[in-house]
Amino acid sequence: MYDGIVQELIDEFGRLPGIGPKSAQRIAFHILQTPTFDVARLSELLVEIRVRVRFCEICGNVAEQERCAICRDPRRNAALICVVEDAKDVAAIERTREFRGLYHVLGGAISPIAGIGPDDLRIAQLMTRLADGTVQEVILATNPNLEGEATASYLSRLLTTMQITVSRLASGLPVGGDLEYADEVTLGRAFEGRRVL
Amino acid sequence: MYDGIVQELIDEFGRLPGIGPKSAQRIAFHILQTPTFDVARLSELLVEIRVRVRFCEICGNVAEQERCAICRDPRRNAALICVVEDAKDVAAIERTREFRGLYHVLGGAISPIAGIGPDDLRIAQLMTRLADGTVQEVILATNPNLEGEATASYLSRLLTTMQITVSRLASGLPVGGDLEYADEVTLGRAFEGRRVL
Repeated sequence: MYDGIVQELIDEFGRLPGIGPKSAQRIAFHILQTPTFDVARLSELLVEIRVRVRFCEICGNVAEQERCAICRDPRRNAALICVVEDAKDVAAIERTREFRGLYHVLGGAISPIAGIGPDDLRIAQLMTRLADGTVQEVILATNPNLEGEATASYLSRLLTTMQITVSRLASGLPVGGDLEYADEVTLGRAFEGRRVL
Repeated sequence: MYDGIVQELIDEFGRLPGIGPKSAQRIAFHILQTPTFDVARLSELLVEIRVRVRFCEICGNVAEQERCAICRDPRRNAALICVVEDAKDVAAIERTREFRGLYHVLGGAISPIAGIGPDDLRIAQLMTRLADGTVQEVILATNPNLEGEATASYLSRLLTTMQITVSRLASGLPVGGDLEYADEVTLGRAFEGRRVL
């Protein structure tokens, strides 16, 4: 349809997650038509990022050094580890500013359907981190869905033999949400987890 | 939140149209984590495209030479010009394989709110193309919205003095659509434009 290179750019953008053919076309034309758009910067970043970014050798979070900024920070509480599925979850929790401990990124969740078992996750590395007795509490912050719950219960069983408190993030109504629009499972969880005031 | 360069890439993607902060983050992590993703190719394309792609000196469509592939094609009917707002519309019409004439890309539509008047569009260039008498019909294919209709009626008034047929794309029910779900304006247009069978 388009002269070669324009179509090629559209195709490349279409390969990115969440970008359909229409969006890819819109982005390609934006790049073509916006004089101020810093194409060179995006182009450089794409190459640089694969060279410069790696994953933290301790927690598995994204890092520009061997250890990520959180693992390097001496002010973080090393007695507390929050276990998450993905590096994106680390960023989401950091934005709350509620948590001052360290993280452990599993790299996914147990999912028999997708063929992901415990051995495909960074669980052995977690056990190694827990071996020296520094950690007092492990917070399981996997997603509140089927795979996340399965992973959390697998880990909690694995940790029962150790002298470590294991906790799970609370499920309930989202703040600012409307009771009427909550699904029954969430509403049920909200009842289960109700707190005396 | 993220170590510098990851956040920079997220920010750059977030500047593209239709990509919010969440999608930008998802794309950045895709690029970080997918070993097979051809980052180098996307990176090169971004630079190449600004160098190699220009706009056709005749119709304003995207082109890799002075004239676009359509204007260069001797099999296209030069007596027929389809006027569109945007180069993306050329591609949409080409996909139908219904039209074998030439195009004229206006580069937008008249919009007093956005401060776009007739002088901001490629209307003078259109008049120049029509001057030699080759063109017998101008099809106004601007969008069926407020700005597109305003542009079409402006152009149709401008062309009344010339010996040229001026037509407008039909409005009506989308094929495969459901009468029940059509908005009243579209349904009204479908009645107005009804054809005797």
